[in-house]
Order: sequence, then C-alpha cells, then structure tokens
Amino acid sequence: MELNDLKNKILKGDRLAVSRAMTWIENEYDGYRDLMDALHPELGRAYRIGVTGPPGAGKSTFTNQLTKIFRKKEQRVGIIAIDPTSPFSGGAILGDRVRMSDLTLDRNVFIRSMATRGSMGGLARQATEVADILDAAGFDIIIYETVGVGQVELDIAEAADTTLVMIVPEGGDIIQGMKAGLMEIGDLFLLNKADRPGADRLKSDIEYVLHLKESKSDWYPGVFLTISNKAQGIVQVAEEIEKHRKFQTDSGILEQKRNHRLKKRVETLVEQKLRQFFWNGQRQQILNRYLDESKNNLSPYKLAEELLGELLDK
Amino acid sequence: MELNDLKNKILKGDRLAVSRAMTWIENEYDGYRDLMDALHPELGRAYRIGVTGPPGAGKSTFTNQLTKIFRKKEQRVGIIAIDPTSPFSGGAILGDRVRMSDLTLDRNVFIRSMATRGSMGGLARQATEVADILDAAGFDIIIYETVGVGQVELDIAEAADTTLVMIVPEGGDIIQGMKAGLMEIGDLFLLNKADRPGADRLKSDIEYVLHLKESKSDWYPGVFLTISNKAQGIVQVAEEIEKHRKFQTDSGILEQKRNHRLKKRVETLVEQKLRQFFWNGQRQQILNRYLDESKNNLSPYKLAEELLGELLDK
Repeated sequence: MELNDLKNKILKGDRLAVSRAMTWIENEYDGYRDLMDALHPELGRAYRIGVTGPPGAGKSTFTNQLTKIFRKKEQRVGIIAIDPTSPFSGGAILGDRVRMSDLTLDRNVFIRSMATRGSMGGLARQATEVADILDAAGFDIIIYETVGVGQVELDIAEAADTTLVMIVPEGGDIIQGMKAGLMEIGDLFLLNKADRPGADRLKSDIEYVLHLKESKSDWYPGVFLTISNKAQGIVQVAEEIEKHRKFQTDSGILEQKRNHRLKKRVETLVEQKLRQFFWNGQRQQILNRYLDESKNNLSPYKLAEELLGELLDK
Repeated sequence: MELNDLKNKILKGDRLAVSRAMTWIENEYDGYRDLMDALHPELGRAYRIGVTGPPGAGKSTFTNQLTKIFRKKEQRVGIIAIDPTSPFSGGAILGDRVRMSDLTLDRNVFIRSMATRGSMGGLARQATEVADILDAAGFDIIIYETVGVGQVELDIAEAADTTLVMIVPEGGDIIQGMKAGLMEIGDLFLLNKADRPGADRLKSDIEYVLHLKESKSDWYPGVFLTISNKAQGIVQVAEEIEKHRKFQTDSGILEQKRNHRLKKRVETLVEQKLRQFFWNGQRQQILNRYLDESKNNLSPYKLAEELLGELLDK
C-alpha cells in the first residue's frame, strides 16, 4: 500500500490500515518514519490512560469494564496490552480470553497486543507510536495496559495522560510498590479485589504514604475500591479520570506534560543519531584495541574515562 | 567506613561490608565507583547463573533447591532477586517467605533483593555490580532471579554465564516466550510443574522450536522436566549447568562472553559521558527554542534530524 493511501485510510479509521501501520512500526519497516511524519499534524485528540499493576491484579478485567463505560458514552476505545499475563495480549488462560470476546466483536474497540521485547529495541517508543496510529484513526480513548515492573513498563505508564495504579490485598505491604516507583506515577490508585481480607488496612496504608508525598500540583491522588469481576466501583473511577482530565486541561498541565513528552522523544532520537555518528570505524577500532590491551587491569569506569579522552581527539 | 577498609572486609567475605557496598551501588553513593575500581582485579572467579521465567512459574522454589545442591558441594551461593513475585525479594505471600527461611539462616548464602526501578537508572548495571561485590567476597555461584519480561530483565539474564529459562504448562503456547526473546537467551530450558497436564506436549513444542533455531555454537539447549516443590529433576539441571560451564570454559566461549560483556559496559559508560558532554547549556537552549517554534509542525523524527545538524555546528 502506498504511503498516502495508507495515511488517508488510517484517518478514516480503516481497521486494516491501522493494523498494517502498527506492523510497520513493530517491524521498523522502511516507510514507518515517513508515515509518522505524515500523521503528526493529526495527533493530540485522543486521551491516553495507563493501567499498571502486578501480575494477576485484575487489570484486564478492569480495562474491559472501563471500556464498556466509555462505549456507553459513544467513545471509541483503543487498548494496547503489553502485559504477558493479560488475556488481551494472549498471555492468560482460556477462560479469560473467552470473557474478553464481547469487546473484540465491537468495531469501535481496537485491541493490540505488543510483545515485551521489540527485537530492534524501543518498546516504549513503539507503544507510543502504536497509540499515535489509534489517535490519528479517531479513537477517543487509548488504554495502555502494562505490568508494573521494569523501566520499559514505567516509561509506557508515563506516556499516559492519566495513570491508574492497581494494587491488590494479597500484594501484601505497599513497600514493594513504592520501591518500584509506582507511588510516583499514579494519578489515582485502585484497590482491586476490595472484597478480600486486608483491603481496608491497605487503603489506609496507601493513603498514609500518599499523604507523606509532596504533591507537585493541586491534584491529590485518591484511592478507589473496586471489584472488577463484579463491575463494582468502575463508574466512580471513570468519573475520577474525567475529573483528572478536566483538572489537567484547565490548569495547562496536560499541555505541559505533552510538550515534555515530545521533548523527551526528540532528545532520545537525537542521542540515537549522535551515537551512530560517534561510533565510526576508527573509534570502534580504538575501543577494541583499548579493551585488548587493558581489560585485566582497569575497571569499566576507568576504561571508559580514559577511552573517551582518546576518542574525542578523533 | 573508609574505602580501603571496606574493600578488605569485602575480600574477607564480611557480610556487613558486602551489604554496605551494595547500598552504595544502589544509592549511587559518591565512593562506589572508586570501590568498583579497587575491586576490579579480584573479579571473575564466581560463576553467574540466570533464572528467568513468567510470574508464578516457581523460580524461587527452584532457586532454593538448586542452592541446596551447591551447598552440599561446599559452594557459597549469592542470590540476587529482581522479581516482584519472588519471596526472596519480599513480593510473595507469607507461606513462601517461611519456606525460604532455611536458606536465610545459612551464613554461606547471601540473598539480596533489588527494586525493579533504580530511581537513578541502570538497574541491569546495578545488578551486575551487586554480583561483582559477591564475586569479590568469594561467593562461588551467583544466581540472578528475574521475571522474564522487560528489556532490563533480559539484560540481566544476558549478564549470566548460563541462563535457565523456566516455562510452565499453564503458560500455554510458547509463542509468547518466543516473542519475549526467551528462546534466544536460554542455555537450558526447564519445564517446571511437569506433573501438570500438557507438560509432555509443551516439551516437544519447545524442542521443535529449538531445533528450528540455528545454533551459534556446538551447544544444544536441552529441555528438562522439573517439579521444584517436590525437589524433582533439580540434580539433573545442576549437572547440566556444570556441563555447560565446562563446555564454555574449554571452548573459550566463556572468556569471549565475558570480554563481550566488558565491552558493552564500557561502551555504555562512554555513551553516558558523551551524552553529558554533548548536552551543555547552549545545546539545551537550542533544543528548547526549536521545540517552542516548531512543535506543532514537525514529527519527532523530523525535529531530531534537523536539530542534530544545527547542534553539531556548536
């Protein structure tokens, strides 16, 4: 398919074109950068929501319920699943997949699962670009679903306009979640499986920790009790997301966030190109010679330090 | 504690000094690079084993059993847990933690859990350095335990001399594992919970996929059936690890691997320094001006391309 043709079909919301563009991105097909260039002016209408939490917390069931609420308001929803335990990404047992099938039949819902490792690197970047395609195709809401571990997953969560962090009673104490950086990224917290023992205690623990944290804005993340598989508490969460969206839009924070994200992407791309430019044949030879000569004497830090001086002369 | 004092205590295997050094690394305390420099000539005796697999596969129970086998041979074992679902890292339910306590009482076993996010970046690098401390402290075997998702976790697995990939019947088809890059990194495969339905079918599936893969050496990864919680099949795995170690040592592959790892570390450090050097105040100003002027017209790719030309003039 020709680039311009593909672009126009995406803008009309053609599902086949959307799928194809995503494959271009995932396989880093030659034309994908031109496509991203061409679609760029069309971006920015979709609202992006991140849902993250430990394996088995019930993120997919929640995403399913939340999607239904958006659908009732005639919003078109894209779901990007980057969670090996998610039924959306094919990682769960058969029962879950069947449960999800009511969404997959809806033409106004688009589900894409992404492998946890882009063989050519940059999963967080690819996920953002897959979301861009959905944005250009007129989806109103995009939901990233990730397991809350690993830098890549946190990067994706940070690419969202509103980030929901899901916690469950059997997760035990919240120190792990704090360590993993989840307390920093949550705009709201869901305590799922709230009918299990320990939920109330955990809720007050989370609220205490959030209270300790200095807020960077006038937004104070709340903790919401949900029971996803009984569809309880989801409407309240949807309302809170709407509230957060309005808060961010009115205060200008949403625009700041998005500008900051663009800046980060450009910086990363500049550095990628810089790296390619720097490691020419001559510099690689010096590196190899250096390692051969001194590898048993100097630590990597010392090696890097001395080497950089030598390399910058070239 | 003074640097030289700390170094000498680590070399004697002092547990408190080992803990302290690890904290230095994790917090990027000022002196840690000097410490790594000082310890560098002492490294390379420990053998590093990676254990990776999906959440709930039974990695910790397996690690526990494997450790006991090494302990019978009077080998000292260090365990680095970077898995939010591992009882070693405090992420599992109480029952598991109790089950592990027999190891924590052994003075010749050192367990360190690491958060899934170093707030100052570089978790894979930090895990390698934590392993370096254990190496310098005279531990014979170091086991990295990670969940097999995310680039960081794969990087850590690749920092091992022998990598074990654990798969379980309820994980369903192996396509997910292939996508996640696990088939590439495994030196041997464990099919754990081998008493569950589907184990034989899965074993032959894995063997088929491994057979398709072109081997980079004369080592052919085998698939081993284990039932960790009944301590079945672990001895065979320990023997295979020993075989793989001998194969790599005799063929020179181990040295090549370690040289390659050193090279990668030095490259990464050089690039870090290069980045700091590149983004001086003037270049940052240009970046900001550029983004302000053109953010709505150009895609990140175009922005980066044009910007780099302008930046390299400065």
